[in-house]
Amino acid sequence: MRPPPFVSFVGAGPGDPELITIKGLRRLREAAVIIHDRLIPHALLAEARPGARVIDAGKTPGRRGHPQAAINALLVRSARRHGLVVRLKGGDPAVFARLGEEIEAVRKADIAFEVVPGITAATAAAARAGISLTARGRSSLVVFATGTDQTGHSPLDLDWTRLARLDGTLVFYMAVRALDTITAHLTELGRDPGEPALVVERAGMDRERIVTGRLGDIANAARAAGVEAPALLITGPTAAPALLSSTDLLPHMLAGVGA
Amino acid sequence: MRPPPFVSFVGAGPGDPELITIKGLRRLREAAVIIHDRLIPHALLAEARPGARVIDAGKTPGRRGHPQAAINALLVRSARRHGLVVRLKGGDPAVFARLGEEIEAVRKADIAFEVVPGITAATAAAARAGISLTARGRSSLVVFATGTDQTGHSPLDLDWTRLARLDGTLVFYMAVRALDTITAHLTELGRDPGEPALVVERAGMDRERIVTGRLGDIANAARAAGVEAPALLITGPTAAPALLSSTDLLPHMLAGVGA
Repeated sequence: MRPPPFVSFVGAGPGDPELITIKGLRRLREAAVIIHDRLIPHALLAEARPGARVIDAGKTPGRRGHPQAAINALLVRSARRHGLVVRLKGGDPAVFARLGEEIEAVRKADIAFEVVPGITAATAAAARAGISLTARGRSSLVVFATGTDQTGHSPLDLDWTRLARLDGTLVFYMAVRALDTITAHLTELGRDPGEPALVVERAGMDRERIVTGRLGDIANAARAAGVEAPALLITGPTAAPALLSSTDLLPHMLAGVGA
Repeated sequence: MRPPPFVSFVGAGPGDPELITIKGLRRLREAAVIIHDRLIPHALLAEARPGARVIDAGKTPGRRGHPQAAINALLVRSARRHGLVVRLKGGDPAVFARLGEEIEAVRKADIAFEVVPGITAATAAAARAGISLTARGRSSLVVFATGTDQTGHSPLDLDWTRLARLDGTLVFYMAVRALDTITAHLTELGRDPGEPALVVERAGMDRERIVTGRLGDIANAARAAGVEAPALLITGPTAAPALLSSTDLLPHMLAGVGA
Protein backbone atom coordinates (compact mmCIF):
# COMPACT_ATOMS: atom_id res chain seq x y z
CA MET A 1 0.00 0.00 0.00
CA ARG A 2 1.26 3.42 -0.93
CA PRO A 3 1.57 5.83 2.03
CA PRO A 4 -0.69 8.89 1.76
CA PRO A 5 1.01 11.92 0.19
CA PHE A 6 1.88 14.57 2.76
CA VAL A 7 4.26 17.51 2.74
CA SER A 8 5.72 18.81 6.00
CA PHE A 9 7.38 22.20 5.62
CA VAL A 10 9.93 22.19 8.42
CA GLY A 11 11.98 25.11 9.72
CA ALA A 12 15.54 23.90 10.29
CA GLY A 13 16.44 26.93 12.38
CA PRO A 14 19.43 29.21 11.88
CA GLY A 15 22.28 26.72 11.51
CA ASP A 16 23.07 25.14 14.85
CA PRO A 17 21.61 21.63 14.44
CA GLU A 18 20.38 21.78 18.04
CA LEU A 19 18.13 24.71 17.19
CA ILE A 20 15.62 22.63 15.27
CA THR A 21 12.46 21.77 17.21
CA ILE A 22 11.70 18.34 18.61
CA LYS A 23 8.83 18.08 16.15
CA GLY A 24 10.96 19.13 13.19
CA LEU A 25 13.57 16.52 14.07
CA ARG A 26 10.87 13.86 14.41
CA ARG A 27 9.54 14.66 10.95
CA LEU A 28 13.05 14.50 9.49
CA ARG A 29 13.48 11.03 10.94
CA GLU A 30 10.12 9.88 9.54
CA ALA A 31 10.46 11.35 6.05
CA ALA A 32 10.62 9.21 2.91
CA VAL A 33 12.02 12.20 1.02
CA ILE A 34 13.87 15.27 2.32
CA ILE A 35 14.13 18.25 -0.01
CA HIS A 36 16.38 20.84 1.57
CA ASP A 37 17.66 24.36 1.01
CA ARG A 38 21.33 25.23 0.84
CA LEU A 39 21.48 27.06 4.17
CA ILE A 40 20.45 24.32 6.55
CA PRO A 41 22.58 22.55 9.17
CA HIS A 42 23.92 19.63 7.13
CA ALA A 43 24.42 17.54 10.27
CA LEU A 44 20.63 17.23 10.35
CA LEU A 45 20.64 15.20 7.16
CA ALA A 46 22.35 12.38 9.06
CA GLU A 47 19.05 12.01 10.92
CA ALA A 48 17.29 10.78 7.76
CA ARG A 49 16.07 7.22 8.02
CA PRO A 50 17.85 4.52 6.03
CA GLY A 51 16.66 4.56 2.45
CA ALA A 52 15.26 8.08 2.61
CA ARG A 53 15.94 10.19 -0.47
CA VAL A 54 17.78 13.44 0.32
CA ILE A 55 17.60 16.10 -2.39
CA ASP A 56 19.45 19.43 -2.36
CA ALA A 57 17.20 22.06 -3.88
CA GLY A 58 19.53 24.85 -2.78
CA LYS A 59 20.31 27.81 -4.87
CA THR A 60 23.84 29.14 -4.49
CA PRO A 61 23.75 32.87 -5.24
CA GLY A 62 25.11 33.46 -8.74
CA ARG A 63 24.80 29.78 -9.63
CA ARG A 64 21.59 28.28 -10.95
CA GLY A 65 19.92 25.81 -8.65
CA HIS A 66 16.47 24.33 -9.02
CA PRO A 67 14.18 27.11 -10.15
CA GLN A 68 11.09 27.51 -7.99
CA ALA A 69 8.76 25.82 -10.48
CA ALA A 70 10.98 22.74 -10.50
CA ILE A 71 10.95 22.58 -6.69
CA ASN A 72 7.17 22.87 -6.67
CA ALA A 73 6.85 19.99 -9.14
CA LEU A 74 9.37 17.93 -7.19
CA LEU A 75 7.37 18.37 -3.95
CA VAL A 76 4.18 17.18 -5.57
CA ARG A 77 5.77 14.26 -7.42
CA SER A 78 7.74 13.09 -4.37
CA ALA A 79 4.70 13.17 -2.09
CA ARG A 80 2.61 11.20 -4.58
CA ARG A 81 5.27 8.56 -5.05
CA HIS A 82 6.73 8.25 -1.58
CA GLY A 83 4.32 9.63 1.02
CA LEU A 84 5.87 11.86 3.67
CA VAL A 85 8.04 14.59 2.17
CA VAL A 86 9.90 16.97 4.46
CA ARG A 87 10.65 20.31 2.82
CA LEU A 88 13.48 21.55 5.03
CA LYS A 89 14.00 25.30 4.98
CA GLY A 90 16.59 27.37 6.81
CA GLY A 91 15.21 29.45 9.69
CA ASP A 92 11.42 29.68 9.86
CA PRO A 93 9.30 28.70 6.84
CA ALA A 94 7.02 31.75 7.21
CA VAL A 95 9.82 34.33 7.15
CA PHE A 96 11.56 35.06 3.82
CA ALA A 97 11.41 31.46 2.71
CA ARG A 98 9.00 31.50 -0.25
CA LEU A 99 6.65 29.26 1.65
CA GLY A 100 3.55 30.74 0.01
CA GLU A 101 4.58 29.66 -3.48
CA GLU A 102 5.24 26.09 -2.42
CA ILE A 103 2.07 25.79 -0.35
CA GLU A 104 0.11 27.01 -3.36
CA ALA A 105 1.58 24.24 -5.52
CA VAL A 106 0.88 21.56 -2.94
CA ARG A 107 -2.67 22.77 -2.39
CA LYS A 108 -3.38 22.84 -6.10
CA ALA A 109 -2.30 19.21 -6.27
CA ASP A 110 -4.73 18.45 -3.42
CA ILE A 111 -1.97 17.15 -1.18
CA ALA A 112 -2.26 17.54 2.60
CA PHE A 113 0.45 19.50 4.34
CA GLU A 114 1.55 21.11 7.59
CA VAL A 115 4.09 23.74 8.59
CA VAL A 116 6.47 23.12 11.51
CA PRO A 117 7.88 26.48 12.59
CA GLY A 118 11.59 27.11 13.13
CA ILE A 119 13.89 29.58 14.85
CA THR A 120 14.31 32.54 12.54
CA ALA A 121 17.74 34.14 12.17
CA ALA A 122 16.66 37.38 13.86
CA THR A 123 15.90 35.81 17.21
CA ALA A 124 18.90 33.48 16.97
CA ALA A 125 21.13 36.51 16.39
CA ALA A 126 19.53 38.38 19.27
CA ALA A 127 20.07 35.36 21.50
CA ARG A 128 23.75 35.16 20.63
CA ALA A 129 24.24 38.88 21.19
CA GLY A 130 22.35 38.69 24.48
CA ILE A 131 19.85 41.37 23.50
CA SER A 132 16.10 41.58 23.47
CA LEU A 133 14.41 42.78 20.27
CA THR A 134 11.71 44.52 22.30
CA ALA A 135 11.71 46.31 25.64
CA ARG A 136 8.98 47.85 27.74
CA GLY A 137 8.83 51.58 27.11
CA ARG A 138 11.80 51.57 24.72
CA SER A 139 10.86 49.32 21.83
CA SER A 140 7.30 48.05 21.57
CA LEU A 141 7.76 46.58 18.12
CA VAL A 142 10.27 44.82 15.94
CA VAL A 143 10.39 44.72 12.14
CA PHE A 144 11.91 41.92 10.05
CA ALA A 145 12.70 43.17 6.54
CA THR A 146 14.71 41.90 3.59
CA GLY A 147 18.01 43.62 2.99
CA THR A 148 18.26 42.43 -0.58
CA ASP A 149 15.70 41.52 -3.20
CA GLN A 150 16.04 38.91 -5.93
CA THR A 151 18.36 41.22 -7.88
CA GLY A 152 20.82 41.32 -4.99
CA HIS A 153 20.16 44.99 -4.30
CA SER A 154 18.44 46.75 -1.47
CA PRO A 155 14.71 46.46 -2.18
CA LEU A 156 13.26 49.56 -3.79
CA ASP A 157 9.75 48.68 -2.72
CA LEU A 158 10.53 48.90 0.99
CA ASP A 159 8.87 51.83 2.63
CA TRP A 160 12.10 53.53 3.72
CA THR A 161 10.50 56.76 4.91
CA ARG A 162 8.21 55.04 7.39
CA LEU A 163 10.81 52.44 8.39
CA ALA A 164 13.37 55.15 9.14
CA ARG A 165 11.07 56.89 11.57
CA LEU A 166 9.41 53.88 13.14
CA ASP A 167 10.08 53.61 16.88
CA GLY A 168 11.37 50.13 17.56
CA THR A 169 13.92 47.60 16.44
CA LEU A 170 14.64 46.94 12.76
CA VAL A 171 16.17 43.68 11.59
CA PHE A 172 17.34 43.32 7.99
CA TYR A 173 17.93 39.82 6.67
CA MET A 174 20.46 39.24 3.90
CA ALA A 175 21.90 42.66 4.61
CA VAL A 176 25.57 42.40 3.68
CA ARG A 177 25.60 43.51 0.07
CA ALA A 178 23.29 46.43 0.73
CA LEU A 179 24.59 47.53 4.12
CA ASP A 180 25.74 50.96 2.90
CA THR A 181 22.47 51.63 1.13
CA ILE A 182 20.28 50.46 4.01
CA THR A 183 22.06 52.50 6.66
CA ALA A 184 22.26 55.56 4.38
CA HIS A 185 18.54 55.37 3.56
CA LEU A 186 17.65 55.13 7.24
CA THR A 187 19.86 57.96 8.49
CA GLU A 188 19.07 60.29 5.58
CA LEU A 189 15.37 59.80 6.23
CA GLY A 190 15.60 60.70 9.88
CA ARG A 191 16.84 57.76 11.92
CA ASP A 192 19.44 58.58 14.59
CA PRO A 193 22.92 57.61 13.33
CA GLY A 194 23.92 57.21 16.99
CA GLU A 195 21.42 54.40 17.58
CA PRO A 196 23.09 51.11 18.65
CA ALA A 197 23.43 48.65 15.77
CA LEU A 198 25.02 45.28 15.20
CA VAL A 199 25.73 42.92 12.35
CA VAL A 200 25.60 39.21 12.98
CA GLU A 201 27.44 37.05 10.46
CA ARG A 202 26.38 33.40 10.24
CA ALA A 203 23.84 33.79 13.08
CA GLY A 204 23.49 30.53 14.95
CA MET A 205 26.11 28.73 12.83
CA ASP A 206 29.72 27.84 13.40
CA ARG A 207 32.18 30.68 12.79
CA GLU A 208 29.51 33.17 13.86
CA ARG A 209 30.71 36.73 14.38
CA ILE A 210 29.09 39.82 15.84
CA VAL A 211 30.19 43.32 14.83
CA THR A 212 28.89 46.13 17.01
CA GLY A 213 28.61 49.85 16.46
CA ARG A 214 26.15 52.60 15.68
CA LEU A 215 23.75 52.86 12.78
CA GLY A 216 25.93 55.59 11.25
CA ASP A 217 29.14 53.55 11.24
CA ILE A 218 28.11 49.90 11.29
CA ALA A 219 28.51 49.52 7.51
CA ASN A 220 32.14 50.63 7.75
CA ALA A 221 32.76 48.44 10.76
CA ALA A 222 31.33 45.38 8.99
CA ARG A 223 33.43 46.10 5.91
CA ALA A 224 36.56 46.51 8.03
CA ALA A 225 35.83 43.17 9.67
CA GLY A 226 35.33 41.50 6.29
CA VAL A 227 31.80 40.32 7.08
CA GLU A 228 30.32 38.10 4.39
CA ALA A 229 26.86 36.72 3.66
CA PRO A 230 24.81 35.40 5.33
CA ALA A 231 24.54 38.24 7.83
CA LEU A 232 21.84 40.38 9.29
CA LEU A 233 21.65 43.91 10.62
CA ILE A 234 19.87 44.78 13.86
CA THR A 235 19.37 48.45 14.70
CA GLY A 236 17.31 49.93 17.50
CA PRO A 237 17.30 51.07 21.10
CA THR A 238 17.97 47.59 22.48
CA ALA A 239 20.74 46.64 20.02
CA ALA A 240 23.65 47.26 22.37
CA PRO A 241 24.94 43.76 23.05
CA ALA A 242 25.14 42.55 26.60
CA LEU A 243 26.86 39.35 25.74
CA LEU A 244 29.85 39.05 23.48
CA SER A 245 31.59 36.32 25.36
CA SER A 246 28.75 33.85 25.41
CA THR A 247 30.14 30.55 26.57
CA ASP A 248 28.09 27.49 26.12
CA LEU A 249 28.30 24.87 28.81
CA LEU A 250 28.56 22.16 26.22
CA PRO A 251 29.49 22.18 22.56
CA HIS A 252 26.64 22.39 20.07
CA MET A 253 26.54 18.79 19.03
CA LEU A 254 23.70 16.79 17.76
CA ALA A 255 25.24 13.82 19.53
CA GLY A 256 23.44 15.00 22.65
CA VAL A 257 20.00 14.67 21.07
CA GLY A 258 17.67 12.47 23.01
CA ALA A 259 20.44 11.49 25.42
CA MET B 1 32.46 21.51 44.88
CA ARG B 2 29.80 24.01 44.01
CA PRO B 3 28.89 24.11 40.28
CA PRO B 4 29.62 27.44 38.58
CA PRO B 5 26.64 29.80 38.49
CA PHE B 6 25.10 30.03 35.05
CA VAL B 7 21.71 31.21 33.79
CA SER B 8 20.27 29.83 30.56
CA PHE B 9 17.32 31.85 29.28
CA VAL B 10 15.38 29.28 27.28
CA GLY B 11 12.50 29.90 24.89
CA ALA B 12 9.86 27.24 25.51
CA GLY B 13 8.05 27.98 22.25
CA PRO B 14 4.35 28.70 21.83
CA GLY B 15 2.77 25.89 23.84
CA ASP B 16 3.13 22.60 22.01
CA PRO B 17 5.85 20.83 24.04
CA GLU B 18 7.35 19.52 20.80
CA LEU B 19 8.06 23.07 19.64
CA ILE B 20 10.93 23.60 22.04
CA THR B 21 14.39 23.23 20.47
CA ILE B 22 16.68 20.27 21.04
CA LYS B 23 19.05 22.57 22.88
CA GLY B 24 16.31 24.05 25.04
CA LEU B 25 15.17 20.57 26.05
CA ARG B 26 18.74 19.56 26.85
CA ARG B 27 19.17 22.55 29.14
CA LEU B 28 15.87 21.75 30.89
CA ARG B 29 17.12 18.25 31.57
CA GLU B 30 20.44 19.53 32.94
CA ALA B 31 19.09 22.35 35.13
CA ALA B 32 19.43 22.38 38.90
CA VAL B 33 16.69 25.02 39.06
CA ILE B 34 13.93 25.82 36.57
CA ILE B 35 12.17 29.16 36.95
CA HIS B 36 9.26 29.30 34.55
CA ASP B 37 6.60 31.67 33.28
CA ARG B 38 2.90 30.90 33.44
CA LEU B 39 2.42 30.39 29.70
CA ILE B 40 4.77 27.52 29.03
CA PRO B 41 3.92 23.94 28.07
CA HIS B 42 3.67 22.33 31.49
CA ALA B 43 4.46 18.90 30.06
CA LEU B 44 8.02 20.17 29.67
CA LEU B 45 8.44 20.38 33.43
CA ALA B 46 8.30 16.58 33.57
CA GLU B 47 11.68 16.68 31.81
CA ALA B 48 13.38 18.18 34.87
CA ARG B 49 15.99 15.92 36.40
CA PRO B 50 15.24 14.25 39.74
CA GLY B 51 15.86 16.69 42.56
CA ALA B 52 15.67 19.78 40.36
CA ARG B 53 13.81 22.70 41.87
CA VAL B 54 10.90 23.92 39.73
CA ILE B 55 9.62 27.41 40.54
CA ASP B 56 6.59 29.09 38.98
CA ALA B 57 7.34 32.77 38.53
CA GLY B 58 4.20 33.29 36.44
CA LYS B 59 2.01 36.26 36.71
CA THR B 60 -1.67 35.56 36.16
CA PRO B 61 -3.25 38.75 34.79
CA GLY B 62 -5.13 40.47 37.56
CA ARG B 63 -3.44 38.38 40.23
CA ARG B 64 -0.11 39.32 41.72
CA GLY B 65 2.73 36.96 40.92
CA HIS B 66 6.40 37.50 41.53
CA PRO B 67 7.16 41.10 40.67
CA GLN B 68 10.08 41.52 38.27
CA ALA B 69 12.56 42.56 40.98
CA ALA B 70 11.83 39.39 42.93
CA ILE B 71 12.39 37.25 39.82
CA ASN B 72 15.69 38.99 39.16
CA ALA B 73 16.85 38.34 42.72
CA LEU B 74 15.68 34.72 42.52
CA LEU B 75 17.70 34.15 39.34
CA VAL B 76 20.88 35.44 40.92
CA ARG B 77 20.41 33.63 44.22
CA SER B 78 19.52 30.33 42.55
CA ALA B 79 22.51 30.42 40.21
CA ARG B 80 24.88 31.16 43.06
CA ARG B 81 23.52 28.37 45.21
CA HIS B 82 22.78 25.68 42.68
CA GLY B 83 24.69 26.30 39.44
CA LEU B 84 22.71 25.88 36.24
CA VAL B 85 19.44 27.80 36.31
CA VAL B 86 17.05 27.57 33.37
CA ARG B 87 14.79 30.59 33.05
CA LEU B 88 12.01 29.16 30.91
CA LYS B 89 9.99 31.73 29.01
CA GLY B 90 7.03 31.23 26.68
CA GLY B 91 7.79 31.79 22.99
CA ASP B 92 11.14 33.42 22.25
CA PRO B 93 13.07 35.19 25.03
CA ALA B 94 13.91 38.18 22.79
CA VAL B 95 10.31 38.97 21.82
CA PHE B 96 8.03 40.56 24.44
CA ALA B 97 9.51 38.55 27.28
CA ARG B 98 11.28 41.17 29.42
CA LEU B 99 14.58 39.47 28.73
CA GLY B 100 16.57 42.71 28.91
CA GLU B 101 15.63 43.37 32.53
CA GLU B 102 16.64 39.90 33.65
CA ILE B 103 19.88 39.87 31.67
CA GLU B 104 20.77 43.19 33.27
CA ALA B 105 20.31 41.70 36.74
CA VAL B 106 22.37 38.62 35.94
CA ARG B 107 25.16 40.70 34.38
CA LYS B 108 25.29 43.03 37.35
CA ALA B 109 25.79 40.00 39.57
CA ASP B 110 28.65 38.93 37.29
CA ILE B 111 26.98 35.63 36.45
CA ALA B 112 27.57 34.01 33.05
CA PHE B 113 24.53 33.39 30.90
CA GLU B 114 23.28 32.39 27.48
CA VAL B 115 20.04 32.74 25.56
CA VAL B 116 18.51 29.76 23.76
CA PRO B 117 15.98 31.07 21.24
CA GLY B 118 12.45 29.71 20.93
CA ILE B 119 9.58 29.65 18.47
CA THR B 120 7.69 32.90 18.85
CA ALA B 121 3.88 32.88 18.73
CA ALA B 122 3.74 34.80 15.44
CA THR B 123 5.49 32.17 13.39
CA ALA B 124 3.72 29.35 15.23
CA ALA B 125 0.40 30.98 14.37
CA ALA B 126 1.43 31.47 10.75
CA ALA B 127 2.46 27.83 10.58
CA ARG B 128 -0.88 26.63 11.89
CA ALA B 129 -2.79 28.86 9.48
CA GLY B 130 -0.58 27.74 6.59
CA ILE B 131 0.44 31.27 5.66
CA SER B 132 3.73 33.00 5.09
CA LEU B 133 4.36 36.29 6.91
CA THR B 134 6.34 37.61 3.94
CA ALA B 135 6.03 37.13 0.19
CA ARG B 136 8.13 38.28 -2.72
CA GLY B 137 6.65 41.41 -4.21
CA ARG B 138 3.66 41.46 -1.83
CA SER B 139 5.07 41.73 1.67
CA SER B 140 8.78 42.41 2.11
CA LEU B 141 8.52 42.98 5.83
CA VAL B 142 6.71 41.82 8.93
CA VAL B 143 6.16 43.72 12.18
CA PHE B 144 5.67 42.15 15.60
CA ALA B 145 3.99 44.62 17.96
CA THR B 146 2.34 44.44 21.37
CA GLY B 147 -1.43 44.66 21.36
CA THR B 148 -1.61 45.61 25.02
CA ASP B 149 0.74 47.38 27.35
CA GLN B 150 1.16 46.78 31.08
CA THR B 151 -2.14 48.58 31.78
CA GLY B 152 -4.03 46.09 29.61
CA HIS B 153 -4.86 48.71 26.99
CA SER B 154 -3.68 49.20 23.45
CA PRO B 155 -0.27 50.87 23.73
CA LEU B 156 -0.44 54.62 23.24
CA ASP B 157 3.23 54.85 22.37
CA LEU B 158 2.90 52.71 19.26
CA ASP B 159 3.41 54.69 16.12
CA TRP B 160 -0.08 54.03 14.71
CA THR B 161 0.18 56.42 11.78
CA ARG B 162 3.27 54.77 10.32
CA LEU B 163 2.13 51.26 11.22
CA ALA B 164 -1.19 51.80 9.47
CA ARG B 165 0.45 52.73 6.20
CA LEU B 166 3.39 50.36 6.29
CA ASP B 167 3.37 47.88 3.40
CA GLY B 168 3.74 44.43 4.86
CA THR B 169 2.33 42.10 7.48
CA LEU B 170 1.48 43.27 11.00
CA VAL B 171 1.30 40.87 13.92
CA PHE B 172 -0.06 42.04 17.26
CA TYR B 173 0.69 39.93 20.30
CA MET B 174 -1.70 39.94 23.25
CA ALA B 175 -4.32 41.47 21.01
CA VAL B 176 -7.66 40.29 22.40
CA ARG B 177 -8.58 43.02 24.82
CA ALA B 178 -7.61 45.78 22.39
CA LEU B 179 -8.83 44.23 19.15
CA ASP B 180 -11.43 46.94 18.48
CA THR B 181 -8.98 49.73 19.18
CA ILE B 182 -6.16 48.24 17.13
CA THR B 183 -8.26 47.59 14.04
CA ALA B 184 -10.01 50.98 14.33
CA HIS B 185 -6.66 52.81 14.64
CA LEU B 186 -5.30 51.04 11.59
CA THR B 187 -8.29 51.53 9.32
CA GLU B 188 -8.93 55.13 10.40
CA LEU B 189 -5.31 55.96 9.66
CA GLY B 190 -5.42 54.57 6.15
CA ARG B 191 -5.06 50.80 6.16
CA ASP B 192 -7.40 48.92 3.84
CA PRO B 193 -10.29 47.43 5.85
CA GLY B 194 -10.58 44.77 3.15
CA GLU B 195 -7.10 43.40 3.85
CA PRO B 196 -7.11 39.72 4.93
CA ALA B 197 -6.77 39.30 8.68
CA LEU B 198 -6.89 36.49 11.15
CA VAL B 199 -6.93 35.98 14.89
CA VAL B 200 -5.19 32.94 16.33
CA GLU B 201 -6.28 31.95 19.82
CA ARG B 202 -3.84 29.82 21.82
CA ALA B 203 -1.36 29.62 18.92
CA GLY B 204 0.54 26.36 19.06
CA MET B 205 -1.34 25.09 22.12
CA ASP B 206 -4.16 22.64 22.59
CA ARG B 207 -7.63 24.04 21.89
CA GLU B 208 -6.12 26.41 19.33
CA ARG B 209 -8.60 28.27 17.14
CA ILE B 210 -8.22 30.43 14.05
CA VAL B 211 -10.78 33.09 13.17
CA THR B 212 -10.50 34.53 9.67
CA GLY B 213 -11.84 37.70 8.13
CA ARG B 214 -10.86 41.15 6.97
CA LEU B 215 -9.17 43.88 8.96
CA GLY B 216 -12.45 45.81 9.05
CA ASP B 217 -14.51 43.00 10.56
CA ILE B 218 -12.06 40.70 12.34
CA ALA B 219 -12.74 42.27 15.76
CA ASN B 220 -16.45 41.46 15.42
CA ALA B 221 -15.72 37.98 14.15
CA ALA B 222 -13.41 37.27 17.08
CA ARG B 223 -15.99 38.59 19.53
CA ALA B 224 -18.71 36.46 17.95
CA ALA B 225 -16.47 33.42 18.28
CA GLY B 226 -15.76 34.21 21.93
CA VAL B 227 -11.99 34.37 21.45
CA GLU B 228 -10.08 34.77 24.70
CA ALA B 229 -6.47 35.57 25.62
CA PRO B 230 -3.87 34.56 24.65
CA ALA B 231 -4.48 35.42 21.02
CA LEU B 232 -2.75 37.33 18.30
CA LEU B 233 -3.86 39.29 15.29
CA ILE B 234 -2.21 38.93 11.89
CA THR B 235 -3.16 41.40 9.17
CA GLY B 236 -1.55 41.86 5.78
CA PRO B 237 -1.55 40.77 2.16
CA THR B 238 -0.55 37.18 2.95
CA ALA B 239 -2.97 36.66 5.86
CA ALA B 240 -5.55 34.66 3.94
CA PRO B 241 -5.19 31.18 5.42
CA ALA B 242 -4.40 28.30 3.13
CA LEU B 243 -4.77 25.70 5.78
CA LEU B 244 -7.64 25.45 8.17
CA SER B 245 -7.85 21.71 8.29
CA SER B 246 -4.26 21.06 9.31
CA THR B 247 -3.99 17.44 10.26
CA ASP B 248 -0.93 16.25 12.01
CA LEU B 249 0.25 12.79 11.14
CA LEU B 250 0.82 12.03 14.79
CA PRO B 251 -0.43 13.57 18.00
CA HIS B 252 1.74 16.24 19.61
CA MET B 253 3.21 14.15 22.34
CA LEU B 254 6.45 14.59 24.12
CA ALA B 255 6.54 10.81 24.40
CA GLY B 256 8.10 10.79 20.96
CA VAL B 257 11.10 12.85 22.01
CA GLY B 258 14.39 11.20 21.27
CA ALA B 259 12.67 8.02 20.09
